[in-house]
Amino acid sequence: MSAGDGGADPARLPRDAQALLARARDGDRAALARLLSIVERGGARAHEVGRRCHPLGGRTYTLGMTGAPGAGKSTLTNALIVELRRTGRQVAVLAVDPSSPFSGGAILGDRVRMGDHVLDPGVFIRSMATRGHLGGLALATPEAVRVLDAVGVDWVVVETVGVGQVEVEIVGAADTTVVVVNPGWGDAVQANKAGLMEIADLFVVNKADRDGAKETVRDLEQMLDLTELGDWRPPIVCTVATTGEGVKELLAAVERHRAFLETGGRLAAKRAERLRDELRAVVAARLRARADALVDDRERAEVEAAVVDRRLDPWTAADRLLTGVDA
Amino acid sequence: MSAGDGGADPARLPRDAQALLARARDGDRAALARLLSIVERGGARAHEVGRRCHPLGGRTYTLGMTGAPGAGKSTLTNALIVELRRTGRQVAVLAVDPSSPFSGGAILGDRVRMGDHVLDPGVFIRSMATRGHLGGLALATPEAVRVLDAVGVDWVVVETVGVGQVEVEIVGAADTTVVVVNPGWGDAVQANKAGLMEIADLFVVNKADRDGAKETVRDLEQMLDLTELGDWRPPIVCTVATTGEGVKELLAAVERHRAFLETGGRLAAKRAERLRDELRAVVAARLRARADALVDDRERAEVEAAVVDRRLDPWTAADRLLTGVDA
Repeated sequence: MSAGDGGADPARLPRDAQALLARARDGDRAALARLLSIVERGGARAHEVGRRCHPLGGRTYTLGMTGAPGAGKSTLTNALIVELRRTGRQVAVLAVDPSSPFSGGAILGDRVRMGDHVLDPGVFIRSMATRGHLGGLALATPEAVRVLDAVGVDWVVVETVGVGQVEVEIVGAADTTVVVVNPGWGDAVQANKAGLMEIADLFVVNKADRDGAKETVRDLEQMLDLTELGDWRPPIVCTVATTGEGVKELLAAVERHRAFLETGGRLAAKRAERLRDELRAVVAARLRARADALVDDRERAEVEAAVVDRRLDPWTAADRLLTGVDA
Repeated sequence: MSAGDGGADPARLPRDAQALLARARDGDRAALARLLSIVERGGARAHEVGRRCHPLGGRTYTLGMTGAPGAGKSTLTNALIVELRRTGRQVAVLAVDPSSPFSGGAILGDRVRMGDHVLDPGVFIRSMATRGHLGGLALATPEAVRVLDAVGVDWVVVETVGVGQVEVEIVGAADTTVVVVNPGWGDAVQANKAGLMEIADLFVVNKADRDGAKETVRDLEQMLDLTELGDWRPPIVCTVATTGEGVKELLAAVERHRAFLETGGRLAAKRAERLRDELRAVVAARLRARADALVDDRERAEVEAAVVDRRLDPWTAADRLLTGVDA
């Protein structure tokens, strides 16, 4: 499967969201790709897709995969796909990561190992972009997961680069979040500084055949000792993604975390919290749109000019623009 | 100067924003650090600081410095500081970058070369964190720049890692944005994928003594050929930050870009657009707070429960919660 609308002739696809969804649920991958494109653009059509998908979902398990560029996230994702496919499970990858080889389409091109799965109808790979979605990646990504969920995908791997504020939030919103580091002192420290300690359910020391792997495991353990943990202490798995070493153990650790979450309603509670967060973000986006519609252009221009001339500060200006929005 | 509230005894500082600002303008660095801490926490006190600073500003020149972790941004910033200090200009660095050695305070610590400037009262280095600011780094960073501007700093270097959505936005909002890459094919491609092509006013190929520097310059030129450019074509400067090679040329290129912006009102227009963007973000944050205050807890809980049970989708739910907010 390609990362784009490839497959069947896209011109033959229905425009109607309901018809597209029905076809995607029947296994039409071009229809699925089209639905994801609609979601990436945002706006009324995206909301319609979301409305139709929401009641159908709740079964997909989401795995977040993050780490610095070059840590080997994509190679690891690939190896995981191979394991998951052995058990017949449908897998999708959402690459929200400019450094990921999954997010092809660069000018000079570096489309890579995703080629491994091109002919497998059980694997769907997609590079996420926002293409105009006003809520950005933070809103568009859960909407894309919702579509994949409604279509019956068993596992969605969300890959991000673990150094940006939005990207860390996105990957932290997965059911299980895997943080990938490499041997060497700096990586564990950087993961900590980037706020990855708080979101990790599982650490992977990838490229563990290199010098310093043991020390990195020890650094991570030390950091975990200094972190306030709940009932789950993130395990640390060593892998060599390029050879597949440790990948079975990684999947087993993910399954243990899943079993942990499925005990005592933890998974349901985590997902409910995620939906509440999403609702809050949608409310904020709606309000923004309403405020834009409310203030007339002349008034806005006057207030903006006053801020630019430094006669008015942005907070007083905001209050002035919002005078009419009081309930 | 340390990255924290170091210097004089912080307990002796006035609590009042106006008094703090007066002292910071008189050169009291502990007062300045305290003002920045207030801004990072956000809320009413931060807005008061912003209100008092806004009319005093408009003179600071902001330089954005971005690139992948390890590209050498901090070393380059250090070398630039040395050049700027030669001409007696006051410089501040805001590190919005978990991979930056400027953003010290990691558990295992790696405070580094900022030591070079510890004793120089003309250099102020600060690691940005949001510490509760609801608008996140995107809102907190311009507020911190506003404080530095009001205090009379001539240059602010904002350093971010060029791989996150928010971080790219922040660095793109500088007067001059410098994108740092390293020799080797992948870096230029990644910079392009991360959206850095659109925000770069200037490229630096750092570590240019390594193999492949020439090829990287050629790659960047090719990408620029394929990018829609305005009146300014970003120049490409080769540097070896560790030895200072090329740093004078970099500063000269920055000054050329500054001169370009100062022609025909371009700089004023760019800054006005930035203030308008900030105002829009403040409006959105205000609306979010109002919506939170508006909906009573029972109603919110009911609607949230319906979304979690998949009886209601987030968009319909948002409309229901906002029924009272219509103008």
